Parts: sequence; C-alpha cells; structure tokens
Amino acid sequence: MTKVGFVGLGNMGGPMAKNLLQQGFELKGYDIVPQLLDEAVKLGAVACDSAKDAATDVDVFISMLPASKHVQNLYLGDEGVLSCLQPETLVIDCSTIAPTVSQEVSSAAKKIGIAMIDAPVSGGVGGAVAGTLTFIVGGGSAPLEQARPLLEAMGSNIFHAGESGAGQVAKVCNNMLLSVLMAGTAEALQLGVDNGLDPAVLSEIMRKSSGGNWALEVYNPYPGVMDGVPASREYEGGFLVDLMIKDLGLAMESALAVGASTPMGALARNLYVNHSKEGHGRSDFSSIQQVYNKSDA
Amino acid sequence: MTKVGFVGLGNMGGPMAKNLLQQGFELKGYDIVPQLLDEAVKLGAVACDSAKDAATDVDVFISMLPASKHVQNLYLGDEGVLSCLQPETLVIDCSTIAPTVSQEVSSAAKKIGIAMIDAPVSGGVGGAVAGTLTFIVGGGSAPLEQARPLLEAMGSNIFHAGESGAGQVAKVCNNMLLSVLMAGTAEALQLGVDNGLDPAVLSEIMRKSSGGNWALEVYNPYPGVMDGVPASREYEGGFLVDLMIKDLGLAMESALAVGASTPMGALARNLYVNHSKEGHGRSDFSSIQQVYNKSDA
Amino acid sequence: MTKVGFVGLGNMGGPMAKNLLQQGFELKGYDIVPQLLDEAVKLGAVACDSAKDAATDVDVFISMLPASKHVQNLYLGDEGVLSCLQPETLVIDCSTIAPTVSQEVSSAAKKIGIAMIDAPVSGGVGGAVAGTLTFIVGGGSAPLEQARPLLEAMGSNIFHAGESGAGQVAKVCNNMLLSVLMAGTAEALQLGVDNGLDPAVLSEIMRKSSGGNWALEVYNPYPGVMDGVPASREYEGGFLVDLMIKDLGLAMESALAVGASTPMGALARNLYVNHSKEGHGRSDFSSIQQVYNKSDA
Amino acid sequence: MTKVGFVGLGNMGGPMAKNLLQQGFELKGYDIVPQLLDEAVKLGAVACDSAKDAATDVDVFISMLPASKHVQNLYLGDEGVLSCLQPETLVIDCSTIAPTVSQEVSSAAKKIGIAMIDAPVSGGVGGAVAGTLTFIVGGGSAPLEQARPLLEAMGSNIFHAGESGAGQVAKVCNNMLLSVLMAGTAEALQLGVDNGLDPAVLSEIMRKSSGGNWALEVYNPYPGVMDGVPASREYEGGFLVDLMIKDLGLAMESALAVGASTPMGALARNLYVNHSKEGHGRSDFSSIQQVYNKSDA
Repeated sequence: MTKVGFVGLGNMGGPMAKNLLQQGFELKGYDIVPQLLDEAVKLGAVACDSAKDAATDVDVFISMLPASKHVQNLYLGDEGVLSCLQPETLVIDCSTIAPTVSQEVSSAAKKIGIAMIDAPVSGGVGGAVAGTLTFIVGGGSAPLEQARPLLEAMGSNIFHAGESGAGQVAKVCNNMLLSVLMAGTAEALQLGVDNGLDPAVLSEIMRKSSGGNWALEVYNPYPGVMDGVPASREYEGGFLVDLMIKDLGLAMESALAVGASTPMGALARNLYVNHSKEGHGRSDFSSIQQVYNKSDA
Repeated sequence: MTKVGFVGLGNMGGPMAKNLLQQGFELKGYDIVPQLLDEAVKLGAVACDSAKDAATDVDVFISMLPASKHVQNLYLGDEGVLSCLQPETLVIDCSTIAPTVSQEVSSAAKKIGIAMIDAPVSGGVGGAVAGTLTFIVGGGSAPLEQARPLLEAMGSNIFHAGESGAGQVAKVCNNMLLSVLMAGTAEALQLGVDNGLDPAVLSEIMRKSSGGNWALEVYNPYPGVMDGVPASREYEGGFLVDLMIKDLGLAMESALAVGASTPMGALARNLYVNHSKEGHGRSDFSSIQQVYNKSDA
Repeated sequence: MTKVGFVGLGNMGGPMAKNLLQQGFELKGYDIVPQLLDEAVKLGAVACDSAKDAATDVDVFISMLPASKHVQNLYLGDEGVLSCLQPETLVIDCSTIAPTVSQEVSSAAKKIGIAMIDAPVSGGVGGAVAGTLTFIVGGGSAPLEQARPLLEAMGSNIFHAGESGAGQVAKVCNNMLLSVLMAGTAEALQLGVDNGLDPAVLSEIMRKSSGGNWALEVYNPYPGVMDGVPASREYEGGFLVDLMIKDLGLAMESALAVGASTPMGALARNLYVNHSKEGHGRSDFSSIQQVYNKSDA
Repeated sequence: MTKVGFVGLGNMGGPMAKNLLQQGFELKGYDIVPQLLDEAVKLGAVACDSAKDAATDVDVFISMLPASKHVQNLYLGDEGVLSCLQPETLVIDCSTIAPTVSQEVSSAAKKIGIAMIDAPVSGGVGGAVAGTLTFIVGGGSAPLEQARPLLEAMGSNIFHAGESGAGQVAKVCNNMLLSVLMAGTAEALQLGVDNGLDPAVLSEIMRKSSGGNWALEVYNPYPGVMDGVPASREYEGGFLVDLMIKDLGLAMESALAVGASTPMGALARNLYVNHSKEGHGRSDFSSIQQVYNKSDA
C-alpha cells in the first residue's frame, strides 16, 4: 500500500486527495486551515500537525499550493520539509509556480538524493472533483513512471514536457495562448455582432474554419451560444479572471527571464488586469467578452 | 445548360473557372490581363472583349477581384455591368472586400431587380485548384440555393452567414481571429523554446489542451514540427502576409465603422505590417514566427 | 468690410463666429439647429435660410462641422454650396475630418476656380471662447495669407502644415501622439503610486526629465496634482473621450490608407474605446487615468 | 577631505569617478576589469584589490553596477561589503536595479546601522562625462544632504523621490514613459510622412501643440530634422536599445509585483525587443523610428 503525504487541501488539493483516498491510497494530510484538514479526515485521511509531519515516513509526497513563495517556504524554509524527506520518497509538486522556483526546489531536492517532478494541472476545480485533470509534468522519466498511478487516480491526461521546471513552462505557455485565444475569440464575435451577425452563426462558421480553437469548441464566451458554459450562467464559476492574471504574470516573468517578445500575451494580461479592476476578478475568464460588448446595447 | 459569365481569372479566379468548366458549365470569361484570358480559353472558356460582354446573356455572373475599388468599378462604374445584367441573372461576388461596399453593390443590384450574394472564400490558391474552397455567403436563401450547384463545383464547404454583406463580415471576423491565433501560437511556442522546451512536444501538449487551435492542428508555424506546411519550406507559398494585412485592414475598417474595440486584432495587424516592412510581405503568414525567434540563435 | 458666411454654429462654431463679429467682421450664418442660429443673431449675425444662402455673395466662407460626411454633404451634396460660391470667395473648412475628404472637397473647389484651405483647430471650446485656438492649415500660401486676419480673430497660433489636406493630417498625427502621451503618463503615474510614490513628486521628476510632455506640463491626469485641470474636477469638461476616439478613428483611417504601422496609437484607441464603453465617453480624455487606478484602493 | 570608495568604473562609473577626483575628492576604486581600474588610477584614484578593500575606511561608498544581481552580490554576497563598512560610512548606490533589491540591500544596511540611498541616474554616458547627470534619490533626507556635495560634483539635477527604493521606482516610471513617448513620436512622425507631410514641419507643429514632449524638444528620432542627435548620425551612441529593454524589464517587474496595468509600456517593451532581435540592440533607442519607416521607400 502506497503511503502518501499531501500538503494543501484547498479547492484543488481537497478533491485531489479525495480521489486518491477513493482509489485506495493511504493518505496523511496537512493544511494551515484546520477546517480543510477536518474535511479530509472525514474522507479517510490521517491528520498531521505540520507539513513536516506529513512528509515523514511516506512513499510519495504531494504539494498543491497557491504560489511560488508557498512552495519555496514549504520545501526550503526554516521548517522546510526537505530536511525530513527520505531519499526514497518521490516528491510531486502540483502547484502552478514560476519555472525558476520549480527548478530551484527540485535542484535542492536532487542534492540530497530526492527525486521530484513538477506536475501543474489544468482542468480547474471541476476536473479535480471529477478526477479528470490534465497533468503537465517536468522531471525525469523514471519518477514520472513512479508517479503515474497516482496521477491517473487524479486525472485523465498526462503530458511529459521535459526536464525539471518544464511542466511549469508548458503550462504557462498554454495558458498564455489560452488568454490570447479567448480575448481574440470574444473580440471577433463582438465585431461580428456589432456588424449585424448572429453570434451563434458566426461561432459555427469560425469553429469550422481557420479561426477554430478550444474556446469556440467547448467554452464559447458569448452568452446564449453554448449551454453549460460560464457564459450561459453570467460567468460564474469556471477559471477565475484573477487566476488567469496570476498565470499571465508567470508567463511575463518567464519572458523577461529570457528576453522573449510576448506582445499578444502582454496585451491579454493588461486587458485582464483592467477587467479585474472593473470588478470582475472573481468571474470566469471568458467574461472578457464583457469588455467588448457595447455599453449602450 | 447553365451559362456563366466570369470576371477575374487570376490566381484564384482562374482555377475556380477551370473547375466550373470541368463540371460541365458553359463559361464565358473576361480579365484585363490577356494572358489570363488566353489560359481560360484553352480550358474551354469563351473569350469576352469586356466585362459587359461577359455579363450579357448569362444565367449566373461571377466576379473574383482583388479589392473593394475593383468591385465598385465593375458593377457601379461608368462601364458598370449592372446596366446590362438581366433581372433573371444571379450575381455572385467571390471577392473579399469591405462589407459596406458589398452592401452598396447588392443594394444597387436589388433596385433593378437583380439578386446578388457575396461569397468570399477561404482556402487559398490550393483550395481553388483542388475545388475545396470554403464559401461564406451573405444574401438571401433563395439565391444561395440557386448558387449552390456552382459553389459546390468550386468548393466543399458553404456557410450562410446572413443577409447581404454578412459573408464579408464573417470572413473578416474569422481572418482577424486567425491572425490573433497564429501570432499567439508563434509567441507561445517561442516562449517555450526560449525556456528550454522542445517545440514539437509543446505543440502537442497545447494542441490537446485549452490552447488548442487551427494553427496547432494543421498549420504549425514552427519550422520542423509539422510536415507539408509553409513552416517546413521556409514559409514559401500559402496565405501571404500582405493578403493577411489586407484582410486585417478590412477588419479595422469594420471596427471603426461601428466603434468596436479590437485591441488584439489591431496589435496583430501592426505586428504583420512591421513584419512586411522587414521584407516578408510575400511569405506565408505563419512566418510571423520569425518575429519571435531569437536573432542570435 | 470683409463679408463672412459661416455654417456650423455649435459648441465650437458659435464662439468662433462671436469672435469674428466682435472683431468687426460682417457675418451671415446658418445652422440646422434654429436655436444656435438665434444665438448668433443676438450677437449681430445675419440669419440665413440655408447653407447656400450663407455662401452667397461673401468674401470668405467658413464651415465648422462634426464629421467628414457633413462636410461632403455641405460642399458636394445635392444642395452643395460649391454650386453657388463665387470664384473670388475664399473657403476655410475648420472641421476635423478625413484628410482624403478634405482633399476631395478642395480639389472639387479648385476645379471651379475656388481657393480652399483646411484649417482644423485645437484648443477646444475654451480656446474657441477665448479666441486662442490653434489652426493647423493645409493649402496654398496665398489663401492662407488671405485667411490670416480671420484666423487671428479666432485664434492665437497658426501653423502651415503643407498642401490641401495637410492640416487634417497634422492634426490627426498630433492628436494620436497626444492620446499616447496621455495614456502613457497616466500609466507611469499609477505604476509609481502603486509602488509607493507620491504622484505630485513623481510628476515633477518626470516633467523635468526625459519623460517630460504636454500632459505633465499643463494637463496632469492624476487627481490632486494640478489645479484647474479636468483631473481636479472629476474630469468634467475639457476634451471629451468620445472626441478623442473620433480623432483616433481618423488616424487609423489615415494609417490604413497608406499601410502605416501604428501599434501605439491603435492600442490607445482601443483603451479609449473600452473606457468609453464603461460609461466615460463624456468625460475629459485625461480620465484615462481611471483605467489604471486600483479598483480596491 | 572626504574619502570615497567607488566600485564599478565602466562607461558610467569611470567618468563619474573622474569628476569626483577633479572636484578634489580623495578616491579609492575597484573594478573586476583591470584596465578600467588602471584608467582610474591614471586620473588619481588609488587602486584597490577588492570591493571590500574599497569599502574599508571611507566616508562615502559609491557603487555603479549593471544589474540587480551585481548589487546583491556586492553588498550581500559571501564577500559582501556590508560586513566591512563602518556605521559612519554613507552608502550611495547609483546602479539602476529592481526597487525590491534596492530596498532589500538598504534594509540590510540599516540593520547594522549604515545609511544608504539609491541614486540611479539619467543622462547617459554624455551626462556622466560632462558632470550633468540627473540623480533620482530614494532614502532619508539626512543622508541625501550628506551626499549632495558628491552628487553635485557628478550631476546637475537632484530629485528626492521618497524613501528607500523610491529613486529606482521613479527612474523606472520615467523611462517607461520615455519609451512610450519615443515610440509614439516616431509613429506619429511616420504617419505624417507617409501621408505627405514634411517631418520637420510636423515636428515643429506637434512640439508647440499638445503632442509636445521631450523627444520633439531635444531628441527628435526622425533623420534630418535635428542636428547633433543620434538620428542625425545613424543612431550611433546615445542610450542603447538594449539598455532601454533592461529598464522596461524593471518596469514590467514593478508592475507584476503590484498587479499594475501597463498596456502601453508593455507594448513599447515588445516593440523594442523585436527591434533588438532585428539587430538594433546597440543602436540608440530613438532608432525605433526605423520600425515605422516604409521598407520600400
């Protein structure tokens, strides 16, 4: 029986831990928020007093935290778990963080003989609950194969992007492109509507033509065109604008670090920041459609 | 036997006329360039001395011209064909032009009892030759049904976008979105490569994820990732940068006409214009990838 | 005594006509809005029944209209004044319109022997009232000298930009640059404030450094930094966002006409359009500052 | 006699040290490049074997280094000078670096009782040689007054932006605005030229109008308009494109750190990066004009 330590039991980590428990993994967990820990315990997890406790005497250690600084602190801080992890423990960090931080932590782990992979996810809370997340993995092939049964318990797609940090880079690139697609799709739809087209007809034409993309396929941002998407429920739920802004911040940092040119991604970030400043930070990111709508319509 | 008049026998119109002839339509043609007319005659067309001649005594009149001013001149000029077309002749304009001009011409035609549809195409020279063009049609349903056999002789997809001019609007929206997708995809790929990823691996991850789009599916802009696309032959052939700039100009005009916001499309246009000014106007539009590549790589 | 015909007696034209009357010019006026005409009559103008009436038997004919279509209609329409102007009449169009339309009208005037200059203004309603407008003139030197006494009665700066239409081009270029300066200044100020700086201190540093520009000099967009500017009165009055959008539309048309690259101006236009869609179209254009402010501050 | 330690004797630091020596300050210097140190010695400086040596037994310690990491290393590294500076020594860092790093170092200095100001400069190599630099200072008023005689020996303008790090923030904001002004000015000039205007005439009109800014005043980017500027000597010398990109990188980091919206600055950065990738990284930053010029003109 594989013993798993899990730190970070929030919106994403909670359901991920639940899926591991339901697939028969033995799991001990920790979160700084006691209620979150309590919920995990109800599902069968063993409660830990600290991250270090959760990292002790386990086969696999998984973290799912909000941002780079939390991951740095968890592994490298004064109470960092690297000091108590055993060499045979596999470490999986599922947080979406700066690739450089991911590399810094995995490099520190490697120095003391611990294998670590970065495995940021896409699919949102819905995917976490359903166990259909996509994992984009950076790190060696051996630890990835070792991790595969656990990743398959939590998700349905696993990509191997390259060495340590590559999972983060690939996710950041994908989400930057996603922000560009979504803003571009919303903009094209509104341009058509303002010139007299029916958004459903235009959506269908572009979907089957060279404008085809993921948003038109399954996540149409125009209200009333597609059922069951955030646009059909006033942009509630889904992937929040402020989380897209976080990912676009990581993309901008990755661009600055290598001197890359990212005019489209940079503009998308600023459109999203402006949208958030207008009060839409907690709406789904397809609500960028509202930026383009006529105010007097 | 349907008698067709065809004006504009260039890169696109030539092979389109050829396909009509091969499907058994009787065709008389005209082009201001004598060689183009000669080539059509070799394929079975009857040569006309003027556009008016081509528009006389035909069941269907088709035009395929470079820009708004040519279409205005053909139909509304001093020697315009509207003066000699018969009420029972169906008019199909396949040119990509300003929606307002399309509406102006079809409105003038309607006044004298002539039905007209705008049917701009996508698919490029390759699609014209292969008879696999996509037609995006604006105008009434009745004339569209009347036109369908001819459109099917030249293409494989027919969309009905709405009333007169709607074909032009839909094409312009699609191509604006396409320019955004292509620039965004090129940008994301280079950001990944500059951060150490393999472009083929990253392409595959994004294609299957929320960054998925037409470019990643069939027209990858990164050299060496996909066979048989312009990126694999130094961006020769395909859909030229300067033609994309033309279509983006139509998109910008359509945005100005209705006060629409098009930050992403406007930026894409300017990136393409800058790219053309660097000498790449006759390259395929996926060559926007080169803007992002490191000069010292 | 110079006899002047004046068409367009609104926010701008009204006070301009008043200044001409006060400087002793004999003036007959026309406006489609009767109240505006009545006000001019109270100041000493002679009322006309039509634009044609105002254009008859005058030494100088001046127009001040909202947009290209109005100017086209005034001069070239079915009831256009070109048909009744005398060859010795000097025509001055003070409207801000498309350079191509300006050239079209002056060319038509020239064909019948009438000299015309385009003389768009900057300085706003305040400058019109105070008689301190800036005129940016396109056309010949001789008609400009003939016009000078009238322009000096209405303004304090006269620039000669070049031949017909050049006044429009220069104004459009200046206002595009102005929109870029204003948005850039607002953005830099907020970036400083968000990072802990005092906006007045930062304004002073940049004003005296290489960031110095007209906005920092006399039109600071940050509330509380400068007295007597729109930013100090909640952006009321001044040069309206929607008028800046109109001028940026002319700039975009001018760019499309010659294939020019205008990434900064295009982005400024879209930021202003988004700002207008949020309900700020009737605020002063320095209110673009509000786009950058933190919503939760 | 004030004793000064000076680390970093390159293009900027060299002439700055020279001016201090010529004003009678006693100076001991260090640079990792021996030739630079030799040159300083010829001008009267005392050579040191290390940065620590230069920081020992001096009244004022000045650093002028390329980037954040060099400053971090100089002060906080294993061989960092904070360990040997005396409490009575005033520290002046003239490097342009991340505000957060500036604060980190000054905070570390403060903990051991050492006063430090950040005093990044503008004015370039020319200003350094002529002793006319502008210093933008962050830190307390008392250390600024203590530093004033030295700053006045090296420059002609001193601004106090605020507390520690504020000098860096203000410089970053100014230079971001400068990049926007320069790109916007170049764009407006080319739009005018493409539409038939004389660049000198248009420059003069905008300079005196609401488009007026530092570039039009003293640094016109259009070749042939102004004497003695980089545009008149094929953009050689001046403030290099790659240094502007460095400063824009700091601006982007400062924006990401606080969630600020910087669409204009982000676009300017990407235009400059694209320009550098085309091979212009070592040209003056006003060469952005070349991006807008017609390639076929």
